[in-house]
Amino acid sequence: MALIVQKYGGSSVADAERIKNVARRVATTKEKGNDVVVVVSAMGKTTDELISLAHQVTDQPAERELDVLLSTGETVSSTLLAMALKSLGHKALSLSGAQAGIWTDAVHSRARILTVEAHRIVKELGEGNIVIVAGFQGITREMDTTTLGRGGSDTTAVAMAATLGATLCEIYTDVEGVYTADPRLVPEARKLEEIGYEEMLELASYGAKVLHPRAVELGELFDIPILVASSFSEAPGTLIHGGITMEVRNKVRGIAHDLDVAKVTVLGVPDQPGIATAIFEPLAKENVNVDTIVQNASVERITDLTFTVAKSDLSRAMQVVEPIAKSIGARGCVADANLGKVSIVGTGMQNAPGYAARMFRALYEKGINIELITTSEIRITCIIDQARVEDALVALHRAFALEKEG
Amino acid sequence: MALIVQKYGGSSVADAERIKNVARRVATTKEKGNDVVVVVSAMGKTTDELISLAHQVTDQPAERELDVLLSTGETVSSTLLAMALKSLGHKALSLSGAQAGIWTDAVHSRARILTVEAHRIVKELGEGNIVIVAGFQGITREMDTTTLGRGGSDTTAVAMAATLGATLCEIYTDVEGVYTADPRLVPEARKLEEIGYEEMLELASYGAKVLHPRAVELGELFDIPILVASSFSEAPGTLIHGGITMEVRNKVRGIAHDLDVAKVTVLGVPDQPGIATAIFEPLAKENVNVDTIVQNASVERITDLTFTVAKSDLSRAMQVVEPIAKSIGARGCVADANLGKVSIVGTGMQNAPGYAARMFRALYEKGINIELITTSEIRITCIIDQARVEDALVALHRAFALEKEG
Repeated sequence: MALIVQKYGGSSVADAERIKNVARRVATTKEKGNDVVVVVSAMGKTTDELISLAHQVTDQPAERELDVLLSTGETVSSTLLAMALKSLGHKALSLSGAQAGIWTDAVHSRARILTVEAHRIVKELGEGNIVIVAGFQGITREMDTTTLGRGGSDTTAVAMAATLGATLCEIYTDVEGVYTADPRLVPEARKLEEIGYEEMLELASYGAKVLHPRAVELGELFDIPILVASSFSEAPGTLIHGGITMEVRNKVRGIAHDLDVAKVTVLGVPDQPGIATAIFEPLAKENVNVDTIVQNASVERITDLTFTVAKSDLSRAMQVVEPIAKSIGARGCVADANLGKVSIVGTGMQNAPGYAARMFRALYEKGINIELITTSEIRITCIIDQARVEDALVALHRAFALEKEG
Repeated sequence: MALIVQKYGGSSVADAERIKNVARRVATTKEKGNDVVVVVSAMGKTTDELISLAHQVTDQPAERELDVLLSTGETVSSTLLAMALKSLGHKALSLSGAQAGIWTDAVHSRARILTVEAHRIVKELGEGNIVIVAGFQGITREMDTTTLGRGGSDTTAVAMAATLGATLCEIYTDVEGVYTADPRLVPEARKLEEIGYEEMLELASYGAKVLHPRAVELGELFDIPILVASSFSEAPGTLIHGGITMEVRNKVRGIAHDLDVAKVTVLGVPDQPGIATAIFEPLAKENVNVDTIVQNASVERITDLTFTVAKSDLSRAMQVVEPIAKSIGARGCVADANLGKVSIVGTGMQNAPGYAARMFRALYEKGINIELITTSEIRITCIIDQARVEDALVALHRAFALEKEG
């Protein structure tokens, strides 16, 4: 008997009808002879509504309290799904993060899972129950509720799958899988049947938004195959796993993008030890999430240092960096808030020549200027004018012939 | 330093503004040098909304799941109040029923508190915190969430006060205290400064609806003074306690009423052992809550047996009783759904003659027919036509001169 973990996102459980639909899908999986653990997100916009309620009470909600407040969203959806399954004649029950044994550190609003003690789940599965776990939440050793931050329910699901030794972790969402590019922007985009963990990580980090990177990392660490599919259709979805033959993957798998990019350049920075620390430590302290960092080779011990942040963080970043720039003797700071990012992603690109050149040519032929370039083992990223991101996506998709199968 | 337990009902925490108002009241109590534990109900109509959500998913929500679902209502309000208090500069935190150590039996939807293990609360109070406890909820030894049923948050508050040895348990609601009669129906009704536990029990059971009888019983058992007052005013409220001199109380304290009364009479019942069991055991099994039972003295070993139920239970009661009536050889069953109940309540009435006579005369002078009469140590109740309840209240209030002080 296989054990399958399924996770349903907020749009999949947005109202009573959708919860009943999810219950039928879960029931079908159970009726095929599998043990099933289901992880659910909060219904639809519940989390946003609870945050807004907290902000009506105070400008700065205490993080410990906000965690308890937000955790009620997943508790509600988990009980409703359990009820729906019972009314279909199945044995089912909901468990909170605490009951499911999800122990975390005490960093409220972005807790990390320390360990999962699954004896309660194992017992309930043994008694024939379908177990519904409230996603996104955990508990500290002091018995205080925590939440796991962005992508929390995905992380709960993969952690459950890893702990229970599940055959498969299925993530159901409102898209049908992982595409070669965002299908809303690139009409020729094609759904991938499978993709490697690292490729998925680069695609998700760089704007694919299908599955949170934390969950992918956890899946890779414990070698749990993850299926991403739609809860609204029977289409097969995309399988994320580690067993793909290297040879057939020596190519671009997909194009990621991000429209929310702002750039700060510190001009004329003296090239000496400790400068990067002087700039990035205060940014971290102010919770400014720095994405890409580029420092050019210095000329006469003077260099420019550029980094990107989300647009919403730009003014805070400038407030932090401007006095620092002055104090370290830099020439000044400039910001640009209207940027975007396109990346080609694929294992083995680094070892095969020509990918970068083909990418740059495709952009050049469309008259798109490249502001910054960064690369990783399996990714080449260009920062460009935000207004040209869509053109760039379509051009790159064609340049690498991604509309064609495998 | 005194320890005070305060409970705020759903209308007192119905929205963000009211929660901030409650926070200011709690803060004032703390600033006077008291330790404070606060118990909160769910915001406004939250519980009804959650029940409706469950019924959208299934006609018969599983009780275990419904308990977890409903418990989120109090969790939400407890976190919001803790946030509001922290933003006023006070140390505060919310605790769930489980964290507060409220252990119950496993009878979902109407669990009874077995014990309160308050070490977490004691620790948090010791660190200077105002502790906000989510009312209405507890936890079983198997770590499953339960709810305490009707009046649950009142019960939580008094149980907390008893466990912690509080000086006073303050119940804040949307009325200013306990009145000699319902002020919406009797304009002359007067707020009582104090009342005994048993008198309060009779008033609350018989429709005063200010404080749940379970909470009053618990207060009497542990001798906890309970103040009932409004969270919307500074008016002094009514103190429920046990230390009232018997002599001054030898009179009617208040008039209770209930508009939700239906009557079933089983006619021509053979007067033999086991008949009452044959009728009331099946009713209990069907969860029909029987209120008053009256059986007249038998004439030639034949009697009539009458009982009252809530109107919503009447058709179920008739379904249960009609076949039983046939099987025990009774003549038949008749029902009346349009009844009401008025009661005069006061310690020592039993020992002082004339109260019943004065009550019956007052009703007679208004032309009100009495259908049934029952009495207890401190109460005389008449079941009458529902349409005449208001007239009866006004007449009885005057007959016993309740508009005048003590």
